[in-house]
Amino acid sequence: MKEIIAIIRMNKVNATKKALADIGVCGLHAMKVMGRGKMKVDFSLLNELGAKEEIGGILADGLAEGARLIPKRMLTILVHDNEVQKVVETLIKVNKEGHKGDGKIFVGPVLDAVRVRTGEQGDAAI
Amino acid sequence: MKEIIAIIRMNKVNATKKALADIGVCGLHAMKVMGRGKMKVDFSLLNELGAKEEIGGILADGLAEGARLIPKRMLTILVHDNEVQKVVETLIKVNKEGHKGDGKIFVGPVLDAVRVRTGEQGDAAI
Amino acid sequence: MKEIIAIIRMNKVNATKKALADIGVCGLHAMKVMGRGKMKVDFSLLNELGAKEEIGGILADGLAEGARLIPKRMLTILVHDNEVQKVVETLIKVNKEGHKGDGKIFVGPVLDAVRVRTGEQGDAAI
Repeated sequence: MKEIIAIIRMNKVNATKKALADIGVCGLHAMKVMGRGKMKVDFSLLNELGAKEEIGGILADGLAEGARLIPKRMLTILVHDNEVQKVVETLIKVNKEGHKGDGKIFVGPVLDAVRVRTGEQGDAAI
Repeated sequence: MKEIIAIIRMNKVNATKKALADIGVCGLHAMKVMGRGKMKVDFSLLNELGAKEEIGGILADGLAEGARLIPKRMLTILVHDNEVQKVVETLIKVNKEGHKGDGKIFVGPVLDAVRVRTGEQGDAAI
Repeated sequence: MKEIIAIIRMNKVNATKKALADIGVCGLHAMKVMGRGKMKVDFSLLNELGAKEEIGGILADGLAEGARLIPKRMLTILVHDNEVQKVVETLIKVNKEGHKGDGKIFVGPVLDAVRVRTGEQGDAAI
């Protein structure tokens, strides 16, 4: 069993839910998060673009931007080991727009799962 | 140390909190999530129930239902290894109604824990 | 790769974000949680303080208090293995006030990470 966590744009939740259902993955949970990704400021590029005074202004903007958190959706999807690859590929296909903020996917270990209603454990509970 | 994640009905949070306190487990965090579980449509049962035309309608309803997310509460409970069993049993006892949507429990590994106030690490921080 | 989860006071989010950016850790997600920590009632102290009748009242208050959940922020920070130590130290430095409720930090394993935009995997995606 693996836990796949995907941080995606808010407007991609429905398309992602549908795409996952289409490949037979129905169990998921979504929650609101505020997030920021890695902010890389390319200093050499800034040096070519303008005077040092302006660079200061741009950097200040960049750092302020880096500190701001953007509303995102976090999906948690519990899958069998052999489903990880197709779920990750599906998440990329639906969410990749080629822009910063497309999101990230993390895969973590799960030791056990239990379905409360039946008491089923392990892979049977997913 | 283990992390126990329970996805339960919203109206079960208070009873679950109390039951966990009763067995000495007080540290937990709750958050709102929107979730859906596995949707299994029993085709053989549907075949017995009606004509194929009706089955199509039922299936369409079923799939639409599968795509809808239901508000749930997600509890995150950090416990010592030897507490996992009793916490899982307590969660089942309080949340099992015998209906779909009773919830799920996941157990994941935790490598380390730190109490910010004291700097205590590992099992001492739980 | 490791996942660092920090449960902190709501009014510490901005200072924590800034302190993490200052050490070069920009990728994080924040969400609202309701939490309670471990409640320890010191019985010997209570015995010194008052009569048994009063102790009963104090204990009842303590248990009610223990059952109440306090709004907190949960930060999820994905880091390289060699960043865990400095992130944990930074979280403690910013959030330690010496009072109950300063928060907790958990470190969990991450098996893989993917940046949706580029398809980069593993440490390159963090």
